[in-house]
Amino acid sequence: MTTILEYAREGICRPQMNAITYNEGVPPEVLRSQIISGKVVIMHRGEVAVGIGEGLRTKINVNLGSSTNRVRLSDEIEKARIAEKYGADTISDLSMGGDINQIRKAILSQTTLPVTTVPIYQAVAESGLKELTTEDILTTIHTQARQGVSSMVIHCVNERMLSSLRQKKRILGMVSKGGAITSSFMQMNNCENPFIGHFFEILKIMKEYDIVLSLGNAARSGCIHDLQDETQREEFRQNLELANLAHDEGVQVIIEGAGGHIRVDRIKEYIEQYKNNSPYPLFVAGPLPTDIAFGYDHIAGCVGASIASSAGADYLCAITPAEHLGLPGIQDVKEGLIAFRIAAHIGDSMKYGKDEKDREIAEKRSVLDLEGQMCLALDRERAEMLSSRVSECTMCGDFCAIKLMKMF
Amino acid sequence: MTTILEYAREGICRPQMNAITYNEGVPPEVLRSQIISGKVVIMHRGEVAVGIGEGLRTKINVNLGSSTNRVRLSDEIEKARIAEKYGADTISDLSMGGDINQIRKAILSQTTLPVTTVPIYQAVAESGLKELTTEDILTTIHTQARQGVSSMVIHCVNERMLSSLRQKKRILGMVSKGGAITSSFMQMNNCENPFIGHFFEILKIMKEYDIVLSLGNAARSGCIHDLQDETQREEFRQNLELANLAHDEGVQVIIEGAGGHIRVDRIKEYIEQYKNNSPYPLFVAGPLPTDIAFGYDHIAGCVGASIASSAGADYLCAITPAEHLGLPGIQDVKEGLIAFRIAAHIGDSMKYGKDEKDREIAEKRSVLDLEGQMCLALDRERAEMLSSRVSECTMCGDFCAIKLMKMF
Repeated sequence: MTTILEYAREGICRPQMNAITYNEGVPPEVLRSQIISGKVVIMHRGEVAVGIGEGLRTKINVNLGSSTNRVRLSDEIEKARIAEKYGADTISDLSMGGDINQIRKAILSQTTLPVTTVPIYQAVAESGLKELTTEDILTTIHTQARQGVSSMVIHCVNERMLSSLRQKKRILGMVSKGGAITSSFMQMNNCENPFIGHFFEILKIMKEYDIVLSLGNAARSGCIHDLQDETQREEFRQNLELANLAHDEGVQVIIEGAGGHIRVDRIKEYIEQYKNNSPYPLFVAGPLPTDIAFGYDHIAGCVGASIASSAGADYLCAITPAEHLGLPGIQDVKEGLIAFRIAAHIGDSMKYGKDEKDREIAEKRSVLDLEGQMCLALDRERAEMLSSRVSECTMCGDFCAIKLMKMF
Repeated sequence: MTTILEYAREGICRPQMNAITYNEGVPPEVLRSQIISGKVVIMHRGEVAVGIGEGLRTKINVNLGSSTNRVRLSDEIEKARIAEKYGADTISDLSMGGDINQIRKAILSQTTLPVTTVPIYQAVAESGLKELTTEDILTTIHTQARQGVSSMVIHCVNERMLSSLRQKKRILGMVSKGGAITSSFMQMNNCENPFIGHFFEILKIMKEYDIVLSLGNAARSGCIHDLQDETQREEFRQNLELANLAHDEGVQVIIEGAGGHIRVDRIKEYIEQYKNNSPYPLFVAGPLPTDIAFGYDHIAGCVGASIASSAGADYLCAITPAEHLGLPGIQDVKEGLIAFRIAAHIGDSMKYGKDEKDREIAEKRSVLDLEGQMCLALDRERAEMLSSRVSECTMCGDFCAIKLMKMF
């Protein structure tokens, strides 16, 4: 299969590009040149195409999937449905429990959104860490590609990163599950990272199915006291080198970075470092500007993600209220997604001045048009419930400032 | 009564000062000089004293109270209880419906927190806008003072502000209820602002009961497209002039400003303008960095308030999910408060480097001590519910990164 990147290089516009041109108001030639430069990728599945990168609306990913100790297919299907209903751009199926292929098939059939996987999750869940082989990992990548996945995450931990981590200067060492599994595999088998060692084989599969390769952020910090360190710098260097190789081969690629827990005054700086030194779309998990908000990490995450997207992050991974506590439920997925939609909108209002929706809502407020506002609500059911389903805002009772000021 | 400010000027340390010295770790002489300079006020009621201003932890106010169309005493009492339980520093009783004095008495008996009122709310609710007289307003101030209120808000709208507003350059003119009632009173009676006209009479009452005078932010913008304008600049000039008069008279005073809806990239700048030009504690409502989040305005408010408190705001008024929709219920008050506790903490971690709690939680996470974390949760019930009440985080099932990385 020829990838969208290769088509773009040949000067050919694919239907997926036209969809993005239309949806985001970017001229086709601009989009094509952004794809060629690596600044934009298109995740696609069937007729759905999601553009991620510079000049495009900030996108939001929602994580879902079973865990080894909680497998409820109906929950995961409902999470996928809720994610699509409330405006997620992509879904990551991180299932590690039950019949993983069956769960993925069900999710793919329930949503039109592009789906991302982390192949080592399924590989290790099915083989066990001790029995896991490089062959298992490559087979899983192939299987997931055939299932119709649009993007895959690999964690390119290397020996330099591990040796920097071994110095134990961090309070929380490595908090990335995919990074930790990959590192454990390397340690137990005394081998190099299988994703780096077999990088060109993996690229071949990505290319065959035009899958977007996502270079994971295994080195992200797990608390705000773990500042940017050599492990993170080395990961970025490694990821950028691999991204360049992928891009040269015609594979679309994004880099994950500046995620995890970051002091609020550093977020802008870290994001700018990534964006200034790499053309590729930047995918950020969080970041969380404080460690104290567990139970409400979607709210802390919204603060960090608002700053991150304002500073140039292209793609946000939503954090749910269950972060640090347990596998998110359906309501948690919804709450996390909406918090991150707020963050993405704040980011877009800064990056592109996209604040027409704010103006529209303000104008409807100025004429007390509650129904008009409801049509623009992030979550109409909730807004209606909070307004007691009456025809106007009841917050101030008989003494509404807007009504009173009509006399002026 | 001699006010705390007057005592401080005379070099006398009052028990309320000692309490703050103890709670916040500020040396008595520093605290005293901050009070003398106007940079710190102490709201007190009985044995409870809350210090607000430079060098002290960012404080959070929670609004509650009946409206003209919803009067449920038990709800308001429960909101006061919830506010105190989840860490509010002060409460504002904004009741406008039912037997307002009875409701206030009940709230005062249910909470130990200092209570703020907006006297014109009760005055207009009891008299009606057409019948309201300056005498009614002054009588209400006196009544509320005798009830044991710790702080009162007045809105010092003047003719220059109204004439600037009449130019209708804003999408949403004046969105402050107290400001709109005061303006309507001025317009209907063709008179000057009663709070400005009787300012020294009001100061006399504030002084007699050592009530903190809060100069309201009637000019705050109601949407992010309504940028800082002449109305806001004139209000700040007016409030600063009145604050200086109050301070000279020995009355403790705070200024409300930089609240409402503000584009996210302007928040820091506005807060710094206030803080650089006024010594008095800055009380901020919100600010909301987007207009699209109704139903979830507590989350958008957390983003704005995190930036505002990081930039120097001293005192935050929590925004609930019901903002723009209706009178908040009990759960809404709790959600708004917790979102603003996150914001205040982020602010304090920036203003003062107060991030010991983040470190403590990170250290407990690094040894998988969930119970230890629960003891530090903002909302233990919710955190326990999300962790399915098991003994450790279950998010990653058998493949917890922290456990896996123990082998390194």
